[in-house]
Amino acid sequence: MHDMELRLEEVIKGIQPTDKKWIENARERTAQLIMPTRALGILHDISERLCAIKKTLKPSINPKAILLMAGDHGVVEEGVSAYPQEVTGEMVRTFLKGKASINAISRAMGVNVQVVDMGIIPDLGIGTMDTGEGLIIRKVGRGTANLSTGPAMTVSDAKKAILTGFKLATELFRRGVEILGTGDMGIGNTTPSAAIGAVFTGAGMDEVVGRGTGVDDHGLLKKRDAICRGIEVNQPDRDNGLDVLSKIGGFEIGGIAGCVLAGAYNRRPVVIDGLISTAGALVAQSLCPVVTDFLFAGHCSAEIGHGPMLRHLGLKPILDLGMRLGEGTGAALAMGIMEGAVRMFNEVSTFDEAGVSTQEEKKDT
Amino acid sequence: MHDMELRLEEVIKGIQPTDKKWIENARERTAQLIMPTRALGILHDISERLCAIKKTLKPSINPKAILLMAGDHGVVEEGVSAYPQEVTGEMVRTFLKGKASINAISRAMGVNVQVVDMGIIPDLGIGTMDTGEGLIIRKVGRGTANLSTGPAMTVSDAKKAILTGFKLATELFRRGVEILGTGDMGIGNTTPSAAIGAVFTGAGMDEVVGRGTGVDDHGLLKKRDAICRGIEVNQPDRDNGLDVLSKIGGFEIGGIAGCVLAGAYNRRPVVIDGLISTAGALVAQSLCPVVTDFLFAGHCSAEIGHGPMLRHLGLKPILDLGMRLGEGTGAALAMGIMEGAVRMFNEVSTFDEAGVSTQEEKKDT
Repeated sequence: MHDMELRLEEVIKGIQPTDKKWIENARERTAQLIMPTRALGILHDISERLCAIKKTLKPSINPKAILLMAGDHGVVEEGVSAYPQEVTGEMVRTFLKGKASINAISRAMGVNVQVVDMGIIPDLGIGTMDTGEGLIIRKVGRGTANLSTGPAMTVSDAKKAILTGFKLATELFRRGVEILGTGDMGIGNTTPSAAIGAVFTGAGMDEVVGRGTGVDDHGLLKKRDAICRGIEVNQPDRDNGLDVLSKIGGFEIGGIAGCVLAGAYNRRPVVIDGLISTAGALVAQSLCPVVTDFLFAGHCSAEIGHGPMLRHLGLKPILDLGMRLGEGTGAALAMGIMEGAVRMFNEVSTFDEAGVSTQEEKKDT
Repeated sequence: MHDMELRLEEVIKGIQPTDKKWIENARERTAQLIMPTRALGILHDISERLCAIKKTLKPSINPKAILLMAGDHGVVEEGVSAYPQEVTGEMVRTFLKGKASINAISRAMGVNVQVVDMGIIPDLGIGTMDTGEGLIIRKVGRGTANLSTGPAMTVSDAKKAILTGFKLATELFRRGVEILGTGDMGIGNTTPSAAIGAVFTGAGMDEVVGRGTGVDDHGLLKKRDAICRGIEVNQPDRDNGLDVLSKIGGFEIGGIAGCVLAGAYNRRPVVIDGLISTAGALVAQSLCPVVTDFLFAGHCSAEIGHGPMLRHLGLKPILDLGMRLGEGTGAALAMGIMEGAVRMFNEVSTFDEAGVSTQEEKKDT
């Protein structure tokens, strides 16, 4: 316990903001590239932020990886999801077979996906396989407790979830991964995510709690009621990310928060996906506000809470495709756009190199 | 002359709408894929439209190509651009060296780029090189005439531009290209494009005429004035795309209109880029309204006219990245997203195949 607490504090102490001088350096290069001033919009912001994160004017985001964190949720017994709880494990099996949306999209984008059992109920796989295609088993528990009636997990387990994500992501970075996406799977997990969103943003239930995988009107009422009761019973402290995570969070959300901290600690970009990943990022931001320097929002989800939560992080989403699946699909697609931004920054000629006339030359004539 | 007219009419007669039954068939497959109902938003619409275009439930968009159409514009003498006219040729040279934004982004997206001289002023290259990396020389003229004082080109040249684009695109499809993006280069070409947008949409100057590559306030006034005079002098007939193209268009815009017709004629998807490509698509739509069944809008440009013009086409842009470069950059990036959509449609398991519980099963219990 004490050791773990110390280590989380060490992680946080080890995180430094990006140096804005690198943004300026990168903007100077952008200004020299043969195109009208900042004509590629967000692509410039992406490539310049990557320069600042890595302290370079030759950014690279290859190889790319996604950590797909799975967990189960006690709050499912309140009737908050359109799907039965078994689907969490069934989907994890599907990920391992390479037959889910995240697998197909990641193949298209050249992204390696690793699946982590952060605390699903069933036992899958035959052991710990940290490399290749296997399931990485790091169960913090067998599903969380029902957050509507008490804390979802202990503070000790919340720390364990964060440090587990941190260690897995750090290990990937040490093996050479240059950009990490976060993904999630867990029936019921829009409920803790929306609860976390409500606590950190201060937004009302109708602004942050949506239909998730597709509950009907009655299910939506039950979901909002469960979240209201959970916040009332637990009284999470919005100035304490660990308190919020333990009372109304989930194991995979903690793991994602750890990934976000790992990106900042190792000076590597992290692309968050939808509502659940953003809940994890809000927990990380609460622990260490500087993490947002290293974060990219892959997309804006169709789930209503996502917009306000991204605004609270201060991030503009790269994509807005009406998606609401999770799994990391929005992060994977955004990495394709980011690859385009990096290639543009690195490979386009300057006006000088190309011998192309500039606006200034025209004004002189 | 007569032969050419006949052939354009033959092209138009050869175009049939997509069969909506294929959309329904594709939607049935989507409904079986292991995810909540249509949880990937626009990705479903993309993959289903591709199925309808190709009459298949196994869509493919590989190989991918872009035709980058270049032309010069007489209206530049009105002071409508922030760059000197020489930049058109200088940029074409840069494309051929592979050092422009479209080259870098296309490499990242796995797209082959072919550059066409549709009517730039200088002579570049040493001949006609229809394959590989060379410039495809199909000069309709050496720049258009000044549209603010009279027709930009003859009706005969307008037809020639369209049929040139049609033939080049058709040749690519015959060689196996499964998806075509359109790109443009031409100093001054946001002026004819905005003029075309104004005529077809009926929108006012302040709604469709923007700063292009970045003219200042004075330049913007001159640009709006030139367009107003051009429409006044020429009186283009909005019910006749050929009339509009010849009076206030450009050679590359005609070429792009031909690419759009070729996609519909050959039943292949065409991804348009920004303002200039969309002007070409509006010309094609005017000639044959059915072409929009085969069109995708790669992105929404930051150039103000683009939104209203896309709405007139009835297309929702895939991306919105604040870009305003042209060259086909938005089309190339969108093809990456489309690749993700296709892989998802083809590779994700159905609920049955994966043995995953559905919402319905839950309702039964």
